[in-house]
This record gives sequence, structure tokens and C-alpha cells, in this order.
Amino acid sequence: AGDAAAGKGKSAVCSACHGADGIALVPIYPNLKGQNEAYLEGSLKAYREGQRAGGNAAIMSPMAKNLSDQDIADLAAYYASLK
Amino acid sequence: AGDAAAGKGKSAVCSACHGADGIALVPIYPNLKGQNEAYLEGSLKAYREGQRAGGNAAIMSPMAKNLSDQDIADLAAYYASLK
Repeated sequence: AGDAAAGKGKSAVCSACHGADGIALVPIYPNLKGQNEAYLEGSLKAYREGQRAGGNAAIMSPMAKNLSDQDIADLAAYYASLK
Repeated sequence: AGDAAAGKGKSAVCSACHGADGIALVPIYPNLKGQNEAYLEGSLKAYREGQRAGGNAAIMSPMAKNLSDQDIADLAAYYASLK
């Protein structure tokens, strides 16, 4: 399972676009605040595996490329925990 | 631009998984309540064009396949408007 505190520590890069509070700075990026943990994991893994094109894939695939399963679980737990 | 009221009228199918209030019924599906309109349009179009695999693509691509640009704009406006 993901560790939200560990996820916070790994979210510096993410917050540049998704906001420190999980509210995206630019409307073409999604808000992540309070999003479903399992959904976030599925999306990050799809980006990591290069299963997505279109939308924001050109930005997100490189971002997710080097994330471990634990990184993904922690980040998902962190953003899901934001209320 | 999208028409949120028209989007509400087109959201019956969507609400089966994403909830009448935009809070997903199942954690592997994303909450759409208050999500960014431009992001939602981008994602729906990526699903429609078959640019996504993995994650929920197997469910979402057929859902999006027959949506017009206006349908997508209206649905995005509707879910973005939910507070």
C-alpha cells in the first residue's frame, strides 16, 4: 500500500504542474486533490508503460518512466489524502 | 464552448460509474467533480481517438467512441461545474 507521507516527499516535481495542494496550475492538467488512489495508480502505470498517447501523455510518460511501483503507490496515496 | 446544462442531459451513462455527483462509485474510476474542463476534453478525445490503452481505456474508449466534439465539450463543462 502507498504511504502518503512518503508520497509527499516524492511530489516536488508533480506539484510544479498539479499544485502543492493538488489543484492544477493550468487547466489542461488535472486536479489530483482527493482523487481516487486506485485510479491514480492505474493512470501513472499506464503512462509509465507508454500505454498512453494524446492528452498530456507527451509530458506524463517521461515523468512516470522512472517511478517504481512503491513511488506510484506513495504518490497516489498522497494526492488521494488531500482534502 | 461546452454547455453544462446540455452536458448534464448527456451524462446519464457516465454517472453509472462516475456518480450523479461526479464522485466515482468504484475507486478505480476517477472522480470528475470539479475537474478541469480542458483536461476532461483532452482525456475524452484521447479515449475517442483510441490513443489510450491500460488503465480504464478498455471501458472508456467504447464510451467515448461516438461522442461529438460538442458532446465532449458539454460533458466536460458539466463535470467541471460540479462543486
